[in-house]
Amino acid sequence: MAERIDDLQCRGYRILQDSEGFCFGMDAVLLANFAAEAVTAGQRTLDLGCGNGIIPILLAAKTEAAELYGLEIQAKAAALARRSVGLNGETERIRILRGDLREIRSTGLGGTMDVVTANPPYMRSGIRNPDSAKLIARHEVLCDFHDVASAAAYALKSGGKFFLVHRPHRLADVLCELRSSRLEPKRMQMVHPYREREANLFVLEAVKDAGRELRVLPPLIVYSAPNIYTAEALRRYRMGV
Amino acid sequence: MAERIDDLQCRGYRILQDSEGFCFGMDAVLLANFAAEAVTAGQRTLDLGCGNGIIPILLAAKTEAAELYGLEIQAKAAALARRSVGLNGETERIRILRGDLREIRSTGLGGTMDVVTANPPYMRSGIRNPDSAKLIARHEVLCDFHDVASAAAYALKSGGKFFLVHRPHRLADVLCELRSSRLEPKRMQMVHPYREREANLFVLEAVKDAGRELRVLPPLIVYSAPNIYTAEALRRYRMGV
Repeated sequence: MAERIDDLQCRGYRILQDSEGFCFGMDAVLLANFAAEAVTAGQRTLDLGCGNGIIPILLAAKTEAAELYGLEIQAKAAALARRSVGLNGETERIRILRGDLREIRSTGLGGTMDVVTANPPYMRSGIRNPDSAKLIARHEVLCDFHDVASAAAYALKSGGKFFLVHRPHRLADVLCELRSSRLEPKRMQMVHPYREREANLFVLEAVKDAGRELRVLPPLIVYSAPNIYTAEALRRYRMGV
Repeated sequence: MAERIDDLQCRGYRILQDSEGFCFGMDAVLLANFAAEAVTAGQRTLDLGCGNGIIPILLAAKTEAAELYGLEIQAKAAALARRSVGLNGETERIRILRGDLREIRSTGLGGTMDVVTANPPYMRSGIRNPDSAKLIARHEVLCDFHDVASAAAYALKSGGKFFLVHRPHRLADVLCELRSSRLEPKRMQMVHPYREREANLFVLEAVKDAGRELRVLPPLIVYSAPNIYTAEALRRYRMGV
């Protein structure tokens, strides 16, 4: 394992990553920033498939959540996440659980979460990636979006919020699965690499047991020219508070 | 009835409108332009709830479709549409059928259409509008989106295309109903009044019996400043060819 430590540029927080495994990307930062705006003091959060713990650690740095859980099926990633939690002195607030989100009922966390987050595998299984950790993070081999939505619905209180990031080509899958899991889509933002290009990512907030009414936020445009971020992208992708 | 004749600024085509009833809006023009790009010579098209016939008449002006049908439940609107068809010398190509889209099976048009369009009522019934023609055009009192999607799926050939315009707050309803009617969402464009404002309209193309993969097109921004259309909006909202 080729390990490295990255500075999260936020109140001195750091994260351990396996540079041969799956490292977090800008989509995780976007998701954390979108969710952080909704987390208030004293709340409980859960990240489904937390990998190396990037989302709980960023939320710990950016919010006053009282308890932050991360659930991860892969032993190596969960162990790395726990060490990062220790490195940041957050063993009191952040708990990394090793387990399968399809068996989330065994955690006893049902109906206890104010906020659930997920940066799930984007691709339907089919294409195979030779590296197992990357495969599991990117392709729906161990869980599909139905499993993710069901786990989120189980863990959330009624009125609790589910934040996720996904690819636009899966939008219909995502909206239909959310709705059939009592998670009503409420706010969505499309992310376009350039103003004139198709969207390649979206973030979405769904609320458990909410009424039907979706708001589509102004689009997030990432680049104004090659390697030149827009002001809005700099703000939304910023790791610091 | 306060009748007026409007020039469609496209090859001399005109339309009769009842200025006390429901007049077509820019959403109808946007939909017609979005659909027209897909209509090829010799094809058959159907507009569900065609009102005064604006969509079939614009498609007749802009495409080489062989037969264009419009289905309308309201007698006054259907009569007006037929007179507009005559006014444009299009009685050979355009047929206005008076009928309820929930009983579309009685038309015998099943599986015959290459393209179906709909500018359906946007609002769930509940709010009431005093004028009946406007009420029926705007609120789901005579049909809801489930009825519209079912009618489109019935009329289309396998591989045929369904184009619609709707409000973003109904997006989850629309995508889930389409999918459950074997109409797979394939291309979508959000329309934002200004760059920094939430979307207030979207156009969508679904394909009957297609595989699952949605593309989200670059956003359409309507105004760059009050009363100043963007170049793209001028192009997309243009009535002329």
